[in-house]
Parts: sequence; C-alpha cells; structure tokens
Amino acid sequence: MNLPDPTQLAWSSHLNTALELAATLAFALSGVIEAGRKRLDAVGVCVVAFAAAFGGGTLRDLLLDQRPFFWVRHIEFLWATMALCVLAMFFMRQRHLKLTERAILWPDAIGLGLFTAVGVDLSVSLQQPALIAVLMGVTTSCFGGVLRDVLCNEIPKALSDHRPYALWAFVGGWLHLLLLDVGSPAWLALSTTVAVTAGLRMLSVHHGWQLPVWRS
Amino acid sequence: MNLPDPTQLAWSSHLNTALELAATLAFALSGVIEAGRKRLDAVGVCVVAFAAAFGGGTLRDLLLDQRPFFWVRHIEFLWATMALCVLAMFFMRQRHLKLTERAILWPDAIGLGLFTAVGVDLSVSLQQPALIAVLMGVTTSCFGGVLRDVLCNEIPKALSDHRPYALWAFVGGWLHLLLLDVGSPAWLALSTTVAVTAGLRMLSVHHGWQLPVWRS
Amino acid sequence: MNLPDPTQLAWSSHLNTALELAATLAFALSGVIEAGRKRLDAVGVCVVAFAAAFGGGTLRDLLLDQRPFFWVRHIEFLWATMALCVLAMFFMRQRHLKLTERAILWPDAIGLGLFTAVGVDLSVSLQQPALIAVLMGVTTSCFGGVLRDVLCNEIPKALSDHRPYALWAFVGGWLHLLLLDVGSPAWLALSTTVAVTAGLRMLSVHHGWQLPVWRS
Repeated sequence: MNLPDPTQLAWSSHLNTALELAATLAFALSGVIEAGRKRLDAVGVCVVAFAAAFGGGTLRDLLLDQRPFFWVRHIEFLWATMALCVLAMFFMRQRHLKLTERAILWPDAIGLGLFTAVGVDLSVSLQQPALIAVLMGVTTSCFGGVLRDVLCNEIPKALSDHRPYALWAFVGGWLHLLLLDVGSPAWLALSTTVAVTAGLRMLSVHHGWQLPVWRS
Repeated sequence: MNLPDPTQLAWSSHLNTALELAATLAFALSGVIEAGRKRLDAVGVCVVAFAAAFGGGTLRDLLLDQRPFFWVRHIEFLWATMALCVLAMFFMRQRHLKLTERAILWPDAIGLGLFTAVGVDLSVSLQQPALIAVLMGVTTSCFGGVLRDVLCNEIPKALSDHRPYALWAFVGGWLHLLLLDVGSPAWLALSTTVAVTAGLRMLSVHHGWQLPVWRS
Repeated sequence: MNLPDPTQLAWSSHLNTALELAATLAFALSGVIEAGRKRLDAVGVCVVAFAAAFGGGTLRDLLLDQRPFFWVRHIEFLWATMALCVLAMFFMRQRHLKLTERAILWPDAIGLGLFTAVGVDLSVSLQQPALIAVLMGVTTSCFGGVLRDVLCNEIPKALSDHRPYALWAFVGGWLHLLLLDVGSPAWLALSTTVAVTAGLRMLSVHHGWQLPVWRS
C-alpha cells in the first residue's frame, strides 16, 4: 500500500481539535442523557459521560500501544467534559433529554466520521494492515457508545437497534484508506470521509433505514 | 522452575494454526448463536462473534504486553471470522441455532484446551510465575465467552451455569505446566493438555456434571 | 507542581503491604457476597472476587503502562484471594452475607482511601498531570467494584446508589496531591488521605448522606 507521510497528517490541527472537541462533547452528552434516563446519581452521570466520550479513543490507544493517551495530550478535553457534566446536572431536566438527543445528532454524526478517520490515520501512520486500520477506526468511533450502554446495563444500541451506525464507520474507514491510497491530500481525505460518513448517518436517521433483519 | 526452551514451542506451527482456526471459528459461532438468540442486528452479530473469538487472546496479549496482537500476525483469522459472520447471516435460521450449538461442542472443547495451552506456553516463554501462567491460560480460553455474554447483557455463562468450563481450563493449565516442568517435549505436552481438557469438558457435558452449589 | 521524590514514597512498605492486603481481601469479599446473592457457581464466585479485588489496580497499571502488574510483584495477594474464595465457599452461608457486608465496611473504606493514595502516588512518580493523577486514584479504588457489578449484570452501585463512594476517592485524591504539593512527608500525606477518605465514607454510610438527585 502507498502509505501517506505521517507528518502530512498534522495538516490543520487547530480545526481538527475544534471538531474533535465538539464531537467529544456530543458523545459525552449522549452519556449524560442515557445516565439521566437510567436515573444514575451524579457520579454515575460523570462516569458514563467520560466512558462515552473517551472510551473509544482509549481502547484504540491501548490496542495500538500509543502512550501517552490522547486525553493526556489534550487534558483540556477532560476539563471540558467535566464542566459539561456539572452544567448538565444543574441545568438539564428530564424534559430536555429528547431535545438534547436531537440537538446532538449532527455533532454525533460528525464525530462518527471524524473519529473513524482519526483512528485510520493513526493506524496507517503505525503501518498497520488495511483491515486493522479500518477496525481501529470503527473502534475509535463506536466503542465509547458500547461502553456507555454496558455501564448502564443495556444491550449496546450499536449492536441491537438495527439502525446503521458502526456500519457507516466501517464504510467510512475503507473510503478513507482508499482516498489516502490514491494519494489524496490529507485534508481532502479527511473532509470527504467525514462528509460521507456523517451524511450517510444522517440520511439513515431521517429515512429510518434499517439493517437487514436476521432471517429466522 | 525448569523452563522449556521457547523456540522449542514453535514445533508444529502449521497443525497448531489449523486447530486454532477451527477453535476460533467455533468461538465465533458461539457468538453468532447468542447474538441470534438476542435478536441483535447484523452489526451486533459480527461484533459479538469477534468478541467471542478474539477477546480472550487479546486480553492475554494486553496483560502480557505482547504486540503486535496475535490477530495482527494472523490477519487471515479476522477475514475468516468476517466471512463466517456473513455466511451465517445468509444461511442460518433460528431453527439452526440448537443444531449449531451441538455441532460446535467438540471444536469449542478443543479450543478450551488449545487456547489454555497456548496462553500457558506464551506466559512461560515470558518467564511468568506458575500461577500467572495458568491464569493467563484460563483468560485466553475463557474471557472471549465472558465478553460475549457481557455484550449481550447476560450474566456470563462461565460464571453462572454450574457446568464446569473455566475449571477444566484451570486444571488443564496446571497439567500443561507440570508436563513442561518434567521436561515433556512440547508436542506431547500440548496434545496431552488438549486431549485431557477437551475430554473432561465433553464428559461433563454428556454426564451433566455440576459444580458444587453454594450452600445457603 | 512540586513533585515529591519517588523513592521517598517507599517509606514503610511493610505496613503498606499489610493494609493493602486487608483492603484487597475486603474488596474480594464484596465480590464473593455479590456473587453469592446472584447464585453464581464456584467459578463465578472466584472470578467476581478477583475482578473486584484486582480490577482497579490492573486498569491503573494498564493505563499507566506499568509492567509487571502489581499482582505479579505481589503474587501472594493472588494466593490469599484464592484461599479466601475457597474458605468462603466452605464456611459462608446465605445468612452470613449481611453480616459480612457490615464487617467489611471499615476495611473497604480504608481500601478506598489507600488505593486512591497509591494510584495518585504512582501517577505522580510518573509525572502525570494533576487531574490524571486524581482520576488514576479514583480508577484504582473504584473500578474493581464497577467490574464486579458489570460481571453480575447490575448497574454498578458506584454509579447508581446515590451514596457517595467514588466522590470521596475524588476528594481524597485532590487532598493527597495537595499534601504532597505542600511538601508533607509521604507517610503523613498517606495517613491523612486514608483517614479523611475512610472517615468521610464511614460518616456518609452512618448518616445516610445522599448524592444530589438529578432534578427532573
């Protein structure tokens, strides 16, 4: 495979960081919402929010043996998430949950694409094989939600709600690899992957697309 | 302890690989079956199958700090598991589940013994103490099933169904260590461990042996 | 931050080890009790006890990339836990569970403070930022209980029972950092942290203090 220059991947780290922060907070809010639904206590809300926001990237760094973890390098993400939890507990009521869930649809979809691309980029820069890189992309973007649901004692939504989510991460991961492989500049590969993945996710939400049902 | 020569452990890697593949696919099928029972979607079936097949070895490699993971070195195992999931979703019906569960009893029991031995061998080659080596063997062979059940929001069967499973891995692990310790050639130690562990497992399935009940 | 000399932290390792062992066994007993309540089998009792006792420190070592794990260096802890499980299965009856739960309140509270301090000390000696150090302290002392509850298919008590537990670890962690930061000798910092954290925990148990309820 024609591997991209890893240094090239650091292209526009400021915009990246802003997008990552927005997506991280959207993931954290999905944790706050689920913890609120389950009537967890204040500690539970924070833990589930952190698990949702940082679980995916942490597992990726663990599997790829990357230290320090991304949240040690971006410690402001931890503080922002903590502030979000405190604010949510002061200002959010049960009746806000539905509203918030719709408000985070877009940032969540962007996070799905962005974190997939980030996971693929990191794996490629570590010379992992293509399939591993794609699976690391899916892990980065989807494992946080799985961990959130396991902590709340639910079957993970990503595995059971028949609405394509991880599937688009998988598709987006291969697309991203393909784009890097044909020599696209990193900024183009990243924005295409994010746009396509987030677009597919939003389309499937709005049109109620369903994963094929297990034929029994 | 009289440690075996690690290089000696690579004795017949082709047969090993074939057996490992069969056992990996049996573990994956146990995930497919449970996901089917729980009516997970197509993504859920794949994720649970992967967790069941690769969870144990991954945790072992993580705990023993072995990189690259075994599934990076044997990437064909990932492809085979993915193919298995696709085939299962096309051809498997609800009425096949019971049948498949019985069909995988033997490969699953062989996997129990084989992965235990593999985990012990790896730990011994890293000069871990005996107890750690045995626990790593149990982890390798049993953690995948635990992860599968946690993802499906069940109490892990290995912890609750009163049928000895992890116990035989524990026994097999000590046996394997003992055999290595008395200087058995690696092929003999491996085949004895697999035969004894798988045999005990099949005996306890067929005779309905129960773990002692907690006396309340 | 004014970092303490790591070697200074090894001050009275024998007393430390005795306290750690008592707290580890208290954590293991909490696992035995929950497994007994859930009517797990003998293997389940052992696995849940091990998860409760060693889960927190293992995740900390994994996140901080510390090898060998603390239980490889203190392998006698593994043997002691295993002996505890066997004894508990022989001598403990359902009617003992309530009694045991009260008997371990103090060792569990001391463990909460002690493991928090240990986690903070280790992180500080690795030059981690303050927030990370505190979160590692909380992880060390609280993750074992979370893992225990996830394995038993419960929403983790630490997240849902509205009784402050992880919160005191968080407070104790910052206190410990502060004490180290103002130059307290290690023995003083450690004993103060343990006393304050355990004291707060016991106070909140006896007075039935509640975490603020999510306002819905």
